[in-house]
Amino acid sequence: LNRIKASGLKLRFCTNETQATREKFVKKLQGMGFDISVAEVTAPAPAACRILKERSLRPHLLVHNDLVPEFAEIDKANPNCVVIGDAAENFTYANLNEAFRVLIGMEKPVLISLGRGRYYKETDGLKLDVGAYMKALEYACDVEAEVVGKPAKMFFESALAEMGVPPQQAIMIGDDIVNDVGGAQRCGMRALQVRTGKYRSVRSLHPALR
Amino acid sequence: LNRIKASGLKLRFCTNETQATREKFVKKLQGMGFDISVAEVTAPAPAACRILKERSLRPHLLVHNDLVPEFAEIDKANPNCVVIGDAAENFTYANLNEAFRVLIGMEKPVLISLGRGRYYKETDGLKLDVGAYMKALEYACDVEAEVVGKPAKMFFESALAEMGVPPQQAIMIGDDIVNDVGGAQRCGMRALQVRTGKYRSVRSLHPALR
Repeated sequence: LNRIKASGLKLRFCTNETQATREKFVKKLQGMGFDISVAEVTAPAPAACRILKERSLRPHLLVHNDLVPEFAEIDKANPNCVVIGDAAENFTYANLNEAFRVLIGMEKPVLISLGRGRYYKETDGLKLDVGAYMKALEYACDVEAEVVGKPAKMFFESALAEMGVPPQQAIMIGDDIVNDVGGAQRCGMRALQVRTGKYRSVRSLHPALR
Repeated sequence: LNRIKASGLKLRFCTNETQATREKFVKKLQGMGFDISVAEVTAPAPAACRILKERSLRPHLLVHNDLVPEFAEIDKANPNCVVIGDAAENFTYANLNEAFRVLIGMEKPVLISLGRGRYYKETDGLKLDVGAYMKALEYACDVEAEVVGKPAKMFFESALAEMGVPPQQAIMIGDDIVNDVGGAQRCGMRALQVRTGKYRSVRSLHPALR
């Protein structure tokens, strides 16, 4: 990272983090010694906010408490769409029913999902990710969610636009073969998979992920 | 119902009820004045129990507390499958993660779902049904659930076998065009939709259900 920055290359951090604001996320990485600022981060919540504003959508939020501040400037009265993120402990039976009722009450339900991950690992074990709950609401309302975040093409296009760089001149570096590498390649970028983080060789993957 | 019984025609009650044992369900209907006994009821939980026994499956249960007694005789130690029903308040974040972990830990995940309903109405509003949570687990584990209950063909076949009647000589009467009428017809039975209960004319249906 320091060498990229020293070289003068333009740089964006593309994250699917939706359990915290960019501020909190950046502070955590700074604490680990990374040279990173909020202005360098492309994340699903701000991307969703742009869509909400463009289309005059007023969201009912089913997200993590720590993400709510990202939507501070968005009108949320009399909702005409649902935004779902990795709400973690907020994925209660009551909250899921409430989000469902808002959706099914619309003439044409609009569901925006901050990612489509299946699951992830935390210190206390595997957890269902936002994608699973997105599928539950999709099925109940017979609607297809609009996914914001990696690997959505629009997400990478936002990052490129923020840098003012065409896809042919950019390379994506990440540990996720689908969200990072696949998404970037479908966008016309080159991509490089690092063998750290969640990287696993094919042989060590669960059959469902091969 | 009294006229059917008086005529001597064979009769089964086919229900997707999975929030209570057949005993409780029958008692409720008896209290309303219906001539019905537990032995006349075909329901998803007993059908699931037959499958579990036949295939030596030991379930992790994600079901309503009131349904648990239906699985009293089933070995549940060291589970090698997950059975999901309309667990209602038991659909907590912790319980969903637990069921997911059991599934993803299997070489070949086996998910048995007691129905595939999208949602239903209770006095306090619409609720997500078992089908939505089934979809969440299917997506997270990249597996397809085996559905027990209406409209599964096997469910109607069980009811016919219990009566000793071929499908051509049976008629299904119900209020649900998909679960009752469609399921029975795909099984070779005739079917009749009553305009009571959840029946709605096409015009009054939510667009998602038309």
